This record gives sequence, C-alpha cells and structure tokens, in this order.
Amino acid sequence: MLPTESTRIYPRGGLDVLSREEVAKFRDASTGMHDLLRRCALAVLTTGSTSDDPRAAQELYPEFDIEVHQQDRGLRIDLHNAPATAFVDGELIRGVAELLFAVVRDLAYTAIELVPEGGRDLGSSVGLTDAVFDLLRNARTLFPTDPNLVVCWGGHSISREEYVYTKQVGYELGLRGLDICTGCGPGAMKGPMKGATIAHAKQRKHRPRYIGITEPGIIAAESPNPIVNHLVIMPDIEKRLEAFVRIGHGILVFPGGVGTAEEILYLLGILLREENAHVPFPLILTGPTASAPYFEQIDRFLRLTLGEAATSRYEIIIADPAAVAKRMMAGIRKVRDHRIAQKDSFFFNWSLDIPLAFQQPFVPSHEAMAGLDLHHGRKPHELAADLRRAFSGIVAGNVKEDGMRRIEAHGPFEIHGDSGMMQSLDALLRAFVEQRRMKIAGDYRPCYRVVA
Amino acid sequence: MLPTESTRIYPRGGLDVLSREEVAKFRDASTGMHDLLRRCALAVLTTGSTSDDPRAAQELYPEFDIEVHQQDRGLRIDLHNAPATAFVDGELIRGVAELLFAVVRDLAYTAIELVPEGGRDLGSSVGLTDAVFDLLRNARTLFPTDPNLVVCWGGHSISREEYVYTKQVGYELGLRGLDICTGCGPGAMKGPMKGATIAHAKQRKHRPRYIGITEPGIIAAESPNPIVNHLVIMPDIEKRLEAFVRIGHGILVFPGGVGTAEEILYLLGILLREENAHVPFPLILTGPTASAPYFEQIDRFLRLTLGEAATSRYEIIIADPAAVAKRMMAGIRKVRDHRIAQKDSFFFNWSLDIPLAFQQPFVPSHEAMAGLDLHHGRKPHELAADLRRAFSGIVAGNVKEDGMRRIEAHGPFEIHGDSGMMQSLDALLRAFVEQRRMKIAGDYRPCYRVVA
Amino acid sequence: MLPTESTRIYPRGGLDVLSREEVAKFRDASTGMHDLLRRCALAVLTTGSTSDDPRAAQELYPEFDIEVHQQDRGLRIDLHNAPATAFVDGELIRGVAELLFAVVRDLAYTAIELVPEGGRDLGSSVGLTDAVFDLLRNARTLFPTDPNLVVCWGGHSISREEYVYTKQVGYELGLRGLDICTGCGPGAMKGPMKGATIAHAKQRKHRPRYIGITEPGIIAAESPNPIVNHLVIMPDIEKRLEAFVRIGHGILVFPGGVGTAEEILYLLGILLREENAHVPFPLILTGPTASAPYFEQIDRFLRLTLGEAATSRYEIIIADPAAVAKRMMAGIRKVRDHRIAQKDSFFFNWSLDIPLAFQQPFVPSHEAMAGLDLHHGRKPHELAADLRRAFSGIVAGNVKEDGMRRIEAHGPFEIHGDSGMMQSLDALLRAFVEQRRMKIAGDYRPCYRVVA
Amino acid sequence: MLPTESTRIYPRGGLDVLSREEVAKFRDASTGMHDLLRRCALAVLTTGSTSDDPRAAQELYPEFDIEVHQQDRGLRIDLHNAPATAFVDGELIRGVAELLFAVVRDLAYTAIELVPEGGRDLGSSVGLTDAVFDLLRNARTLFPTDPNLVVCWGGHSISREEYVYTKQVGYELGLRGLDICTGCGPGAMKGPMKGATIAHAKQRKHRPRYIGITEPGIIAAESPNPIVNHLVIMPDIEKRLEAFVRIGHGILVFPGGVGTAEEILYLLGILLREENAHVPFPLILTGPTASAPYFEQIDRFLRLTLGEAATSRYEIIIADPAAVAKRMMAGIRKVRDHRIAQKDSFFFNWSLDIPLAFQQPFVPSHEAMAGLDLHHGRKPHELAADLRRAFSGIVAGNVKEDGMRRIEAHGPFEIHGDSGMMQSLDALLRAFVEQRRMKIAGDYRPCYRVVA
Repeated sequence: MLPTESTRIYPRGGLDVLSREEVAKFRDASTGMHDLLRRCALAVLTTGSTSDDPRAAQELYPEFDIEVHQQDRGLRIDLHNAPATAFVDGELIRGVAELLFAVVRDLAYTAIELVPEGGRDLGSSVGLTDAVFDLLRNARTLFPTDPNLVVCWGGHSISREEYVYTKQVGYELGLRGLDICTGCGPGAMKGPMKGATIAHAKQRKHRPRYIGITEPGIIAAESPNPIVNHLVIMPDIEKRLEAFVRIGHGILVFPGGVGTAEEILYLLGILLREENAHVPFPLILTGPTASAPYFEQIDRFLRLTLGEAATSRYEIIIADPAAVAKRMMAGIRKVRDHRIAQKDSFFFNWSLDIPLAFQQPFVPSHEAMAGLDLHHGRKPHELAADLRRAFSGIVAGNVKEDGMRRIEAHGPFEIHGDSGMMQSLDALLRAFVEQRRMKIAGDYRPCYRVVA
Repeated sequence: MLPTESTRIYPRGGLDVLSREEVAKFRDASTGMHDLLRRCALAVLTTGSTSDDPRAAQELYPEFDIEVHQQDRGLRIDLHNAPATAFVDGELIRGVAELLFAVVRDLAYTAIELVPEGGRDLGSSVGLTDAVFDLLRNARTLFPTDPNLVVCWGGHSISREEYVYTKQVGYELGLRGLDICTGCGPGAMKGPMKGATIAHAKQRKHRPRYIGITEPGIIAAESPNPIVNHLVIMPDIEKRLEAFVRIGHGILVFPGGVGTAEEILYLLGILLREENAHVPFPLILTGPTASAPYFEQIDRFLRLTLGEAATSRYEIIIADPAAVAKRMMAGIRKVRDHRIAQKDSFFFNWSLDIPLAFQQPFVPSHEAMAGLDLHHGRKPHELAADLRRAFSGIVAGNVKEDGMRRIEAHGPFEIHGDSGMMQSLDALLRAFVEQRRMKIAGDYRPCYRVVA
Repeated sequence: MLPTESTRIYPRGGLDVLSREEVAKFRDASTGMHDLLRRCALAVLTTGSTSDDPRAAQELYPEFDIEVHQQDRGLRIDLHNAPATAFVDGELIRGVAELLFAVVRDLAYTAIELVPEGGRDLGSSVGLTDAVFDLLRNARTLFPTDPNLVVCWGGHSISREEYVYTKQVGYELGLRGLDICTGCGPGAMKGPMKGATIAHAKQRKHRPRYIGITEPGIIAAESPNPIVNHLVIMPDIEKRLEAFVRIGHGILVFPGGVGTAEEILYLLGILLREENAHVPFPLILTGPTASAPYFEQIDRFLRLTLGEAATSRYEIIIADPAAVAKRMMAGIRKVRDHRIAQKDSFFFNWSLDIPLAFQQPFVPSHEAMAGLDLHHGRKPHELAADLRRAFSGIVAGNVKEDGMRRIEAHGPFEIHGDSGMMQSLDALLRAFVEQRRMKIAGDYRPCYRVVA
Repeated sequence: MLPTESTRIYPRGGLDVLSREEVAKFRDASTGMHDLLRRCALAVLTTGSTSDDPRAAQELYPEFDIEVHQQDRGLRIDLHNAPATAFVDGELIRGVAELLFAVVRDLAYTAIELVPEGGRDLGSSVGLTDAVFDLLRNARTLFPTDPNLVVCWGGHSISREEYVYTKQVGYELGLRGLDICTGCGPGAMKGPMKGATIAHAKQRKHRPRYIGITEPGIIAAESPNPIVNHLVIMPDIEKRLEAFVRIGHGILVFPGGVGTAEEILYLLGILLREENAHVPFPLILTGPTASAPYFEQIDRFLRLTLGEAATSRYEIIIADPAAVAKRMMAGIRKVRDHRIAQKDSFFFNWSLDIPLAFQQPFVPSHEAMAGLDLHHGRKPHELAADLRRAFSGIVAGNVKEDGMRRIEAHGPFEIHGDSGMMQSLDALLRAFVEQRRMKIAGDYRPCYRVVA
C-alpha cells in the first residue's frame, strides 16, 4: 500500500458557503453522493499521477475516505488515508485543497439545483444552456473582463516533443495576457498552463486564470493538476463540451486521441450550422513538425465526413508557437467586436446556437453505439453529432469506469456506417493506436470494431 | 419638477453576472417586475431624502425610469430622469450605483429562485429558512469570519439627541472592530453606520461591512444610504426579520416607533421559546438620558404582555455608549463559543428555532388585523407573534403604499384584545405619536383604533 | 493622575524598516532624540485632547515613556504609562500605532539625513527644497496619481458652526474623490477629514489619503487625530509650510487665528513673486455665513499690506460647500494641465519658486521679532515674509513650549512698523482674541505688543 | 543588424519617485551615468540571451539608447532601438519594464547616496554594511516577514541535466513557501526561479519574491530574466556578496565555475571566523548524480586550503531535491530561533561579522593578482579572502569588460602561491575549463597562469 496522510482542511477566503442541507447531502449514504465525492476527491488528490486507469487510484488507496462537515466557519473537509503525494511535509498542497472545495461546491450544486426537482427544465435546449450557465456562474467562472480565454484541447497521452510544444504555445499565449482553459489532466491539458504560468510571471499578471473543466466520468482518468485555479465539475460530457464553447473565446487543438476527435467533431458540428455562420470562433489546430502528418490525417477525415466547407472554420499551423498566439489574438479581437455588436456578453457566448442533439447526454451502450447513423448524405451537423457520439463511446470504453465495465461484459462496441467513411474512421483510429494516443500505459486493446 | 439626470452604469468588479433569462424578466411588462424595480431603484436614488412617504418620490420624479440591458460586460443599467441629488457633478455616486446593482440582483433572484416554480418548498419552516439563506448567500452577505455583526434597530424618526447617540454607539462598536447591520433608512439606521465609519477609519479596518436589509414594501419609505455596502432586498418583512436574527450576532435597539416595537416582539417571541432557551443572543436596549422614560415604558409593556421572564433576554443601558459596546462584545464572545460547541456556522444562526408562525407572510387587511388574538393566557411566543403582527399592520398603515391605500379606503384598523393589554398598547402607541416617532413630517393621523 | 496603559507594538505591513544605527539614535540619551520622541509620541497618544497647552500632556502623564527596540521583525515600540484614552479595551487604536511608527520614521530620517553631516547643503534654496522632497518621499507621501490633494488650513479653535461647515466642505471634496491634507490637530484640521471619510465611504474610495503634516514644535499643541493615515513630521515650520505648498494641488482656508494668518501670508508672499505669476494655484477662503466678517477683515488686511494685486490669487466663498468643491476641482484641472505642459510632476510642485527668505528657519526671539521690517514700500513678497514671521512668532508665544518660555521670562514680543499697518495688524489680532481663536481654553493673555 | 523597437514606459504603482536632481544625473554626459545606465539597461533588455560576452549586446544593438525624463507622473523612460526580443507584439514585457525602473532607481541611489559626498563613511566596515543596508532598503528588498529566503548560487554555463536539476530543487523549495534569490542570469540562477514559479502557483502564493542581485560589472554577461521581480544593482561585487549573505537565510550552491568558487570562498571565509562560530547559516552544495565528482573536487580543494574545520559549515547532497529543501527548511528554522534570541532582524543578518578585507573593493590588476598571498599557514579566513580575490580576478578576466581589456592588453594574470595549493587550484580551474563552466560559447582561452 502506498503512503498516505490524514488531515482536516478549511476553506480560505470565504467563498465556500454551504447550507446545512447541502452538507447533509454528502452524508446521506443512500444518494450515491458520498461515493461520487470520494471518487472525484481521489482524482484531485492523485494529481500528477501518470495513470489514466480510473480504477487504479481506487486500488492504490483502498482506505481513502473523505467527509464533509458543517462547522463554525461553514465547512470542514476531513481526509482519511489520502495519497501522501498530495502533501508536502505533512501539509496538503494549497492548490489541491482549493480544488477539493471546488469539487464539493459543484457536486452540491449539481445535486440540488441541476435536477428536475430543482424546478429545472432539463428537456429543452434553452433549459440545458441555462443549467450550464448557472453552474459556471456558481463556480465564479464568469467575469465581465475583456475576451481573453483560450481553450486548449489535446491528448493526455502525447509525445515528449508534443508536450514541450504545448508549453511553448502556452508561453506565447501567456505573454499576450491570455488565460488558459483545458479539460484537466496531463499532456496537452497541462503543458499550456505551465508555459503560461512562466509567461504570466514575466508579464506580472497577478490574477491569471487557469480554468479546468471536467466531469465525474473522466476526472478519475485525467486528474486536474493544481496549477488549475478554477476547477469546474460539469455533470456530464455534453455540458462540459458546451461549457468549453460558451466560455472560450477561441480554441486551440493540439494532437490527441479519440477524446480530442470528439471535441473537434462537436465544435465543427455546431459551427457548420447555418445559424452560426456569422459567429466568429477562432479554431486553430497546431503541433510540432513531427505532428504534421497527424493533422493532415485529421484534415482529410474532416473533409471526407463533413465536407470541404468544414475547412473554412479551422486553420492548421505547424511548429510556430508565436504565430499561433498572434492568430488567436486576431481571432479574439473579432470575437470581441462581434459580442459588442450583438450585445452578447463577453463571458458567455449566448449567440452560439447549440441544438438539442449536441446537448442531450449520450449513454454509450452497445445498442446506442450500434445505432449511430454514420452515412454520407446527412446534414453535416447531424452527421457530426453522431460521429461525436461514436468517439465519445470509444473514450468511455477506454478510460471511463462505466464504459470499461460494459466492454468487459459484452466485448467491443460495433460501429456501422458507409464503407468509405468506415475505412477512414478505421484508419484514423488505428493511427491513434499506433501513435500511442489511446492510453498512457500498456498495450491497447481496442474497445470498438468498425463495420462497413 | 425637481432636477434630474440620465446616465448608464456598469457593474464593477465582476460580481454581477445575470443570465439572459434574468435580464429578460425585467423587460417583461406583464410580470410587474419592471414596476417593482422602478420603485426600489427610485428609493435607492432618493437616498438622503427626509420624507417617509412612499409615494412622495414617485410624485416628485414622475418621469423617472430604469432599464436593465444585457451587454458585453454582462449588464448595463440605464437611468432616465433620475433624481439629481444622487449625482455629483453629473456622475452617479458610486455607492448608489452599487446599491442599484444589488437591487437588480436580489429582485432577479427572488423572481426566479424564491418561487414555487423554482422547485422550492415555501410552505415549511425549513424551506423558508433555506430561502432566506439562499438569498443572503447569493447577495454575498455570508462570510466565514469571526462573529462581529451587530444589528441595530431603531426608529427612522428620532430626535437630534437620539441620533447623535446612535452615532456615538456606532463609533464605540466600530472601535472594537464590529460591523453594522441595519434596516436601511435614516435615523437610528444611519447613525450607527456613520459613527462606525469614523471608528473603522481610525482602526484601519479596510473592508468594513455596513449591511442594509430591507424589503420592497418599506424601501420606499426608508431609502438606504450609500454608506451601506451590502444591500439585500428580502421579498417580505418576515424574511427580512429572519435575515436579521440569523446573520446578526447581537442586536441593539435604539428608540423607535411601531417598526421597532414589531422587531422587539419578533425577537423576544422567538427567544422565549423553550427550544431557544440555551441559545445565547445579546439584546441591548439603549438610548441617551432623555430616552430613559421611553425604555421604561417599553419594558413595562413587555413585562405586562410577555411576562417577567422576558426581561431575562434583554438589558437596558442608558447613556453609556462604551458600556453598550463592551457588553455587546462580551455577548458576542458567548455566541462564538456556542457556535463552536454546536458546530453551528458563524455566519448563519441555524440553531435558532423560528416557528412557522413567525415566518409566514402576514398581510394586514382590516379583517386580519381585527382577527388578532391579543389576550393574556396564551403562550408568550404565540402572543408575541400576534402582537408583532399588530405592530406590523400599523407600520403598513403608516408608511407602506398598500397599507396606506387600505386605510384610505376603509378607515383605521381595529385592534381587539384584553382591556389591560389594550390600555397598555394604547398608551404605548399614544406615546409614539406624542414623541413624533410615527412619521417624520406633518401631523400624525392614527391608522388604527384600539378596542378593549 | 490619569489612567494609563503600557503595551508593545509592532509595525504592520513591512513599511517600517530601520537600521541598527537608526534605532540606536533613539537610545542615546545625549542627543536629545529620546526626549523629542517622547514629546511627539505623547502628542500622538493624546489625540482627541481639547487642550492646546503643549505642557499639559507632560504634566498629566508624567510617567509616560517610550522605547524603540531592534527586533526580529525590525522594530518594536514599548509604551509605558501611556494615556488610556488612546486604547480601546486595552488595545492601542491601530491608527494611533501607525502614527507612532511614522513619528519614529521621520525623526530618525531627520536626525540622520537632514543634517549637514548627512552630506546635505542646507544653506541653499535648492538644498532645502531637496530636503523637503526627500523627507516626504521617505514618508511615502509622494504618489504619481492624478492631482487630487486639497490642503485645508484653518484654526484649531473655531466655533461649532465653523466646525460643522468644515465637515460639510470635506464631505463635498470627498464626494469628488479629492484627498485631504491638513496640519493635524482639532478644529479646521479635523473637520474636513471627517466629512471626507463619510463621502469616500459613499464613493467606495478604498485608499483615501488623509495626510497630516506637522512639526515637533506644534505637534504637542495640535495632536494628530488618527483618521490621518499619512503623518509627516517635518523638522521645522518653514519646511512644513513648504511641504504643504509643494504637495497640495490647491488650498482651502477656513477661519483661524494667527497660525492661519501665517499660512496665508506665506503662500501669498510666494504666489506674488514675478517668477510664480504663471503657476496656477487654487486658493479659496471659505466659511459659514457667520464667518463673512472674519474674511472681510482678512481681505482688508491683505489688500492693505500686500496691495490689491494680492486679491487676484485668492477667492472668497461664503456658505456654499458644493461651490467650494466645484471651484477647487476647476482649479485643480488647471494645475493638472500646467504640470503636463511644464513636465512638472503631479506629486511635487517643482515649478513653484520659493526664495530662501521663506525657507530659512525663523527663531522668534524678542530681538528677532523686534527686528522685523513691517513698512510699506517693500516688495510685497518681502513684506509678506516678515509679516509671516511676525505671526509665526505669535504662534510660538501662544502654544509652542520654547516660545511660551521666552514670553514668561521676558514679557511680550514687541512688533514695530508703519502706524497704518500696525493699527490694522492690531485690529486683526484683537479680533482673533475676541473671537477666541488664539487659544482653546482660558482667558487669553497676549504674547505680543504692537508698536506703531 | 537585429530587429529593434522604440517605446516609452512609465512606472506602475507609484513606487518609483525620483527627484529632479536624480533625473538630471542621468542626463549629465560628464558623469558617465548615462553610459552606465545604457549598459545596464541593454543587459536587462537582452534577457534570455545565451551569450555571456559583455560586449556582444553592444555590438548587436549599436543604435540602442535610453533616456530618463521627468514627467507629470514622475518618471518616463524612452527606449530607442531596443532589442525586439524584449517586446511582444510591439509591447515591452512588463517584467522587463519593471527591471528597467529598478536599474534607474539603484543607479540614482548609488550615485547620490553611496558616495563620500553623500556624507558616508565608506572606509569603515560599519559604514560599508550600512551602505549595503540602505541600498537594499531603498530597493524595498527588506521585509519583516518570517525567514524564508534561499540564495541560490551556481554557474551560468551548466549542463542540461544540471539545469533541470536546479528547476527541480526550485520546485521543492517553492512547494515549501520559500522565496528565491540569485545573482541573475541564465543557468543555475534561472532554473530555481522557474521551478519555484510553478510550485508557488500550486501553493497559491500570490506575492512570491524572486530577488536578483547583480552589479554593473557582471550584469552585461548575466542578464536578469524577467521572472525576477526584485532586481537590485549593487555598486560592486563585494557589496553584492555582502547583500547575499545579509539577506539570505540559507544558501544553496549548484555546480558552477570560478564565480561560484568565489562565492563559496567568500562565505566560508566569513563563517570560519571565530566571531561567527555561533551564527547558524545553512549552506548546502547540491547537484544531480553526474555532478558528484564536481563536488568531491570542490570539497577536496576546500579541505586543503581552509582546513578540515571548513567542512563543518557545509553539507553536500547529491540528486535529492526534496532532501535539499527539507534540510534547508530545518536550517532556516534554526536561523529564525537565533535571530529571535539575538534580537536580530529577520530581514538583515546584522550579527554576521564581515571584516573589512571582505568588503573593500578588489580591483584585479595584474599587479594586484600577482600580489595575492596564497600560502598555507595563514589564518583560514585571511587565506579565504585572498583566494576569493583570485577567483574574482579570473571572473573579471573571463566576462567583465574591464578585466577582458586588461587581459587583451597585458596577457594572462599570474597567480602565485604554495606549490601544493597551486596544483590543487590549477586542477580545479582545468576541470572548470574541461566541463565548459568558464564560458558559454566558443573555446576557452585561460586568462590566468598558476605559478607555484
């Protein structure tokens, strides 16, 4: 068993005020809340771990437990047998403690507010967008500052060269005063924040924002690193994706695997809608020289599936961090002008039309995966929605606990579709496997089968 | 017509983030929200006014209007033909602008969250307390700091000598680092804040809290002065009273009229409950030498109606500001120890038992007023509840728009009860009238009739 | 004997770092530094005292002592038998503690830097101005913010009505974001700060500046009140006067006595110089309606002595606080434009030409006072210099320890001059006596004799 | 010619207030101040340069110029044809701008205060220590916080592996809340700050201190990187060394060349004095596994020259960053206790006895170098003083402009001494050459000859 520590932590700065009812939720064994909290907290505490196996941490720290108490200053978190790696000389790293309070805050909010009993309309597109807004606001992620938030997507399992490149790009973004948002976790989600941290220090930016947006299904595989100073736990992958595109003023895509492909499909599916034709949204795919073939393949896949029109919404820049940052700045300036003209807020992209198909939670059962309709002839954004689901299912089969269990029980998912599209998809997935982008450690055993 | 100015204001500091839906509420003419906003905003803008006639401001500024807009930085408030007195050389006083944003924030929250459609149980005691907590939290009034908040109650119409005394007491409280909460408005609600402001400057307290808690019915008669840096608009008088006793760590009562009597009855009714016997709650009645007879009369009335036991829950100190502050400090220390022992929070007094009778909104119709059961023999806290309602009704008849209209239409309220109690009540009310505590200006025409 | 307290205090915020040598200065009995420190500290500790007798505090607190120690955090001040009035429940008022550290800082700087052994040229005008600059900079009084500092002069012994008026003017200045500088002490030096404190709270000005500039000779008679958050002890009256006119962006004069007359003469003497003809400098004399005759008399005296031209440099506004503030704002805007055009700094008025005659310390011996040359025909600024000295001597004879001792030993000063000028001077001084502007308490026994 | 930019910069935050006289100093061509400023400013602007040739920057940017102007906000710096590498999209990096203001501040202070005309005794040990204190205080480097400042020494020219190791150590120090001070420049002076920056972000340390102490002779070869947020330019190498040991609470030595050897000899020479026997001073030599032989050789050299006793004052830890940080923490705790016991300040080590021989500037002429007395039998601290001078001379010959010119004119320095000591010295210097620690680029041509 690995070394552990136990401790009690208290919130700093008065931001975390829970009601008695909210605290009580975590203590009620019947609701599953405690188990959820335990899993998310363990993910935060195993920050820096290089494993992406969601069950590994549970097995390494079987005695770990967490309790939330109501106290004079409002809240107290007790940790029992927590990973010693999150401590320095017996004291929990302060950033880790902050992230734990963020977990408690978001799980409580989700359990009480984002449920039908909370008076919510979670069946309509408007209602779901409001849910995303409310959770982000409650997490104090929405500020009326000038647009400056760059969302960085990319793989958790990338090469050393790619990782160094993400740091360089983050550095160039940081030099220009841009803040960073990623999905939490190692690799392309950590590098830009590290680079930006150094640049922000040089630019004397005293309150930089490193926003991490995750969800309970993925957090165990992609521990937030404590540079993240605004952590948000969205209730599911669809709300997490909506959060990214509503609060980001531009998006960078580094090399990645199926998760990154899911994200690209999600965003392009939305941007290709007629309704969004006039909404500016800088989208840049970038990597070091060695990643050029990777992006060529992605580019081909997107042209084949979504059509040539798709290429008008993104740009590929290879091996030029400063150029990436400059292009992003230029793109964000357009976003700013558009928001002012539209009286849209700087902090939440209300103008972007996201249809229900992209918002409704997709549960990747074998049946649902088999039922995806991957054929040419569909409208690009509809096809994109189903392709997004296909990748989402593979992510689940790879690194999410539920998905892995399904695969263990019933074998790989089957994905059906046009033979051309299926060949292209198969080639893409094989490339991910060969480039070791699927999983960090061990040989990869595919959780899917592409059927033309 | 009085001089006016028009302007646009923007929130500072990123605290005021509304959703599209929330902004839209204010523009929907059908909901009454715009009218409510207009009235509350005008109250804030006529700060410093010495009138307590709720309709006066409306008549003086008939062209006044306010609009809430969604904008790039989230929110913009447009003021049209606003009272020039809130401006300095064409610029709105910053504190006034802040209070306007607080009004918008609280009205939006109330309209969307504190309604049955918001998934709320507003019929139970627990549900109502949660509503109070949630609104206070949303207004960022709850901080996990050491207990230091003194609620000051007292009249808006008091003598110069009494006013100077409230400043002196505020000064002594401020010297000891105590923060101030009042009901907004002039007189005893302003003096302690002014005194504390000077003392806080001397003690270099850089983030003092001057909390004002009001409600839409009373705000027009008691404009918040802009020293208030945390304004909260509770939806009704009962939630406002609950807010006072849940967030205050001790309460001071200066001389006042029926409103103050309502507050004393409310608090004593709660403290006299068996369930609250062990909850420490410092309660001090104080005034200058000339006010001694006033407190003697109050004291007699309380003994007569609630019994001798009531006197164990309060203390009367005459003409000694430093002693008041010292006793309050001692009382708050006990509150602190109790909260720690009970694992109750410092910022919200969950332990205090407030029964539904004190929480349910009382609408003072002539029928309801006539139906109050003011007889000896009832349990003290039940009698207190009805006495509280009696005073509440008179406040409404004196200075609230709805109440005044009822009196104009149907004549004075009739209040029935035991002849001894009625004589005592009558004497008290007559004294208020004689001491000019009922209304600031003009001769007072009673809105009630006491019937033995 | 009055109640006292003993305590130890430590600097907050890391601003007060003394060297071993500087600390040692205070402990060396031979230098007189300890005695000087003791006197200044006692003045700070008797804040709020209404006495202007410099020896009163010494007699009331004979056992008072102060020690400066070198410690781990740099500095520790030990107070023995200090006036209990500076304490609240056993704790020294924080503002008072800050002022004590300011006293130590300035006395140390003066003793080590502003002496010929410090490599200083204290014989030239440039060298003396540099000394003033260096001391103000060391006291962190110089900030490169926009011009907004109003110096308020006026009497320590003024009527209630005049005092209330100074508060109202301070309030109007504060509403416009102006900071206040005075000479410390009660009356017209305290009122504007109190008024501005309330206004700054309403305008949410979180770092207002209340600068007090004093000198060891006067501090005992005019204790700084702890609203002052930047206290500077200049070594003598001439440097104090130069500090006022170099850092103030405009000057207000309230009713006062000989000290105020000294200040007006000093400033007009400088402004009437050819060299300063183009330097804008707003100067407003103001008071309530009852003070109108006072200013008429001053005005007459100035016309008589300095000539009609003098009136072009000041303005008299009676009973209109808002107008005073607006005129001051307009004047400061011109100062701002001029500084930018002249590349002069906002925080120190380098452009103002102050001749050596106004900078050299004047020691008011009987001989020096008798030697003043108060005759028509001299250049206005030369005559102003001598008139300034005459008033300065009377201030010393009234409330400074040295001066009082001289008068006790040798009888009143004799002041000689033109008979018309002497009559006018005599009338002015008599008026000060009648209006009780000379001394706060007791009957006034003149320390001067005017000889035509 | 390399790309350049021109711009004007203004101070932020009001810290940089110069007098007219101080500004004028920089404009007076006769004093050499402008040239000194130009050289130092260019060093700051070529941050990140990998050259250690002090003349390279001058040659690359021949048109570069800088002017200091007096302005409304006090100070304005004009840059002409400055290296474009210090700019991001046309804007000077903010950290670089701050460092430029620090250069101006320190050069002005040195030119006016730290000269005999400034009333200074620069001939005595006490006087020199006061000069160091005063300059550090003027640079706002002295804070009364708990001891937490680790000085990191080591080479500017180190291997990739060594550089990564310095980052790891910096990270472990930063995790424990320790601040970093180095001599500015690349390599071991930059790595610890980068590592600490990431750790401080994780620990939410919002005001970390990265202090760089340099001097005009070396700054051109070792440009400060803009992570440094407190830059101090001491007037010479001896005051720079004294500054390190007076403000550091512990010292870490990474692998380096002659400069590092100079620093070790300086510190050990002082610590070995009888007078300092009881002054705790943690001193740790550390590097990655590959550096073990390096430290063995240093260790042997120190034993041979200073005797076995020297080893009691340092500790060598190989390849264990966390252990280094823990030992440093333990050492600093002892420093803290000692300071409290001795009433010594936390921010300046007054207790340490530094004799005049270590304080007097050593000018490495050929004659002076030849005259060094490097023989056994001398008292350790005296021998250490001369050995320190020997290394100091070689540093000058390698990378300082004056020294390089001397070598070019007169050939290598000759260093005489005991044959054993000379062999050992020769071996050490040869090892530095072989390990490429002398100079970053090109083949190294020794500037010295060891003569037994």
